[in-house]
Amino acid sequence: MRKARISFDGTIHEAFEWEGRLKLDDGRIVEEREVEWLTPIIPRTVFALGLNYADHAAELAFDAPTEPLVFLKGPNTFIGHHGFTRRPADVTYMHYECELAVIIGKTARHVKKEEAYQYVKGYSVANDYAIRDYLENYYRPNLRVKNRDTCTPFGPWLVYANEVSNPMNLKLTTHVNDKLVQEGTTADMIFDIPTLIEYFSSFMTLSENDVILTGTPKGSVDTAVGDVVVTEIEGVGRLVNTIIGDESFLNR
Amino acid sequence: MRKARISFDGTIHEAFEWEGRLKLDDGRIVEEREVEWLTPIIPRTVFALGLNYADHAAELAFDAPTEPLVFLKGPNTFIGHHGFTRRPADVTYMHYECELAVIIGKTARHVKKEEAYQYVKGYSVANDYAIRDYLENYYRPNLRVKNRDTCTPFGPWLVYANEVSNPMNLKLTTHVNDKLVQEGTTADMIFDIPTLIEYFSSFMTLSENDVILTGTPKGSVDTAVGDVVVTEIEGVGRLVNTIIGDESFLNR
Repeated sequence: MRKARISFDGTIHEAFEWEGRLKLDDGRIVEEREVEWLTPIIPRTVFALGLNYADHAAELAFDAPTEPLVFLKGPNTFIGHHGFTRRPADVTYMHYECELAVIIGKTARHVKKEEAYQYVKGYSVANDYAIRDYLENYYRPNLRVKNRDTCTPFGPWLVYANEVSNPMNLKLTTHVNDKLVQEGTTADMIFDIPTLIEYFSSFMTLSENDVILTGTPKGSVDTAVGDVVVTEIEGVGRLVNTIIGDESFLNR
Repeated sequence: MRKARISFDGTIHEAFEWEGRLKLDDGRIVEEREVEWLTPIIPRTVFALGLNYADHAAELAFDAPTEPLVFLKGPNTFIGHHGFTRRPADVTYMHYECELAVIIGKTARHVKKEEAYQYVKGYSVANDYAIRDYLENYYRPNLRVKNRDTCTPFGPWLVYANEVSNPMNLKLTTHVNDKLVQEGTTADMIFDIPTLIEYFSSFMTLSENDVILTGTPKGSVDTAVGDVVVTEIEGVGRLVNTIIGDESFLNR
C-alpha cells in the first residue's frame, strides 16, 4: 500500500492511489492535479547522511567516511510533491540530491542489524538540495547548506515496507527538465539501512515517524530558477519539484 | 509573567507561580512537588550554539569561532524541570552546560539586529549536557555528543520578554550537589542574541517556538550518577536535574 497526505477543499486528508487518481479517506475520488500534496508523514527527527555514497564523496573531493556522518534537519525545510523550492539569488551553486527516505515505524533502542527492518514503516523519496557555497564551513554541512526554507521536497508517497522487497537494490535517478543528470543505486550506500538503524539506536531512541535520509550518489549539477527537477526511486516514487526565485518565493 | 507546562492528574496544564505554589489554568492551586514538569513550550526547531563563550572554547582547546557554529537538536533529548538524565555507562566524560534559551515569538525573516528583540517571546534555562568522548569527530559536535535521550533539561518557566530587562547581562551558575562549579554572564557571549536572530533569519525563516540555545561559559566538570545538577540564570529560572544510570533509565 502507498499513502499520501494532501490538502483538498481546505482540509487535510489521507489519499491512496486509485486508477491514476486519488481516493481520499472520506471516499471521494479526485484528480491528482486538484490537490496540494503535503509531506507523506509529519516528520519527527530527520537524520540526513553526509557522503554515504563513495562516488559522491569523491566528486566533492572528500574522503569517504569511516563512520556515519549525520546532521539533523528542521521542519522549515520540508515541502511536498509538486512543491516550489527557492533558489536564493545570492548563492552560486545549488544542486539536487535524490535520496531514499526510510520512515521508522516504532520505538527502537539497541536494535541489531538482523532485526532492523522490523522497525521500518516504509519508504519515500527526498530531494535534499544543497547550497554548495557553504560546504567548506568548519562545522559542515551547516544550516546554510542544508536547512534553507523549502529545500527538501519529500514524497509523494509513504510506501509501506512490505511493498519494497529489497530497499538496498533500488535504482535512483534525477532528471532536470527531462534530461537525465543523476543515476545510481542504493546498493552503493557505504552504510546500509540496517547498519544505520543499529548505529542510531545504539545511543538514542528512534521513534515513529523519525526519518533517515540515506544520502545521494554522484551527479551534482547546478540548478537554475525555472528548472523542473524530478527525483525518482524505483518502486518508491517520482517526486516533482520546481525551482523558483526569491521574488516568487516571497510573494507566495 | 512566567508560565510552565505541567502534568497533573493525568492532564497537561499551563501553570503560573502563585505564592510558592502553582496556579493551574483551571484555577486549582497545587504544590510544585505534586506535578510533573514538562518543557515550558513544545520546541519547534532547536538551534544550539557551539563555543559561543570564548572562555569555554579555550577550555576545550578550540579557537573561538568567527561566525556562529550551530547544530540542531531533536525532540528525544528534551525533558522538564526535576527530570532525570541518563549518563550512559559506556561514556567517560559528560558535562553540564548552563545556557540561556531564547524562545522565538513570531515568524522572522531578514530581521535586522535593531529589531531582533521584537521577535523574542521569552526566555528559559537549558542544561545542554555534552558527552565529551565524541567531541573530536569530523562533524563535531555530533549526535553522540549532543542528541542523547534526556540530555537536555529545559525549564522550569517560559519567562516573557518584558520581564527580562537586559538578557545580555545575566549571571549564569551551575551547582552540582550544592557546590558551585560554573559561573559566568551572558555578557560574555561571542555572538549576542540580536546577532544570532539576524544571522538565522538572513537565510531561513524562524517560527514561533523555535528555540536558540545560546552556548555556555567555561566550567566543565565531569558528572556522576546520583549528582543533582542545578543550572540557574538570574531572573529566568532555576532548573533542577538528577543524573541516573542506564538501569534506572531503562526501568522508568
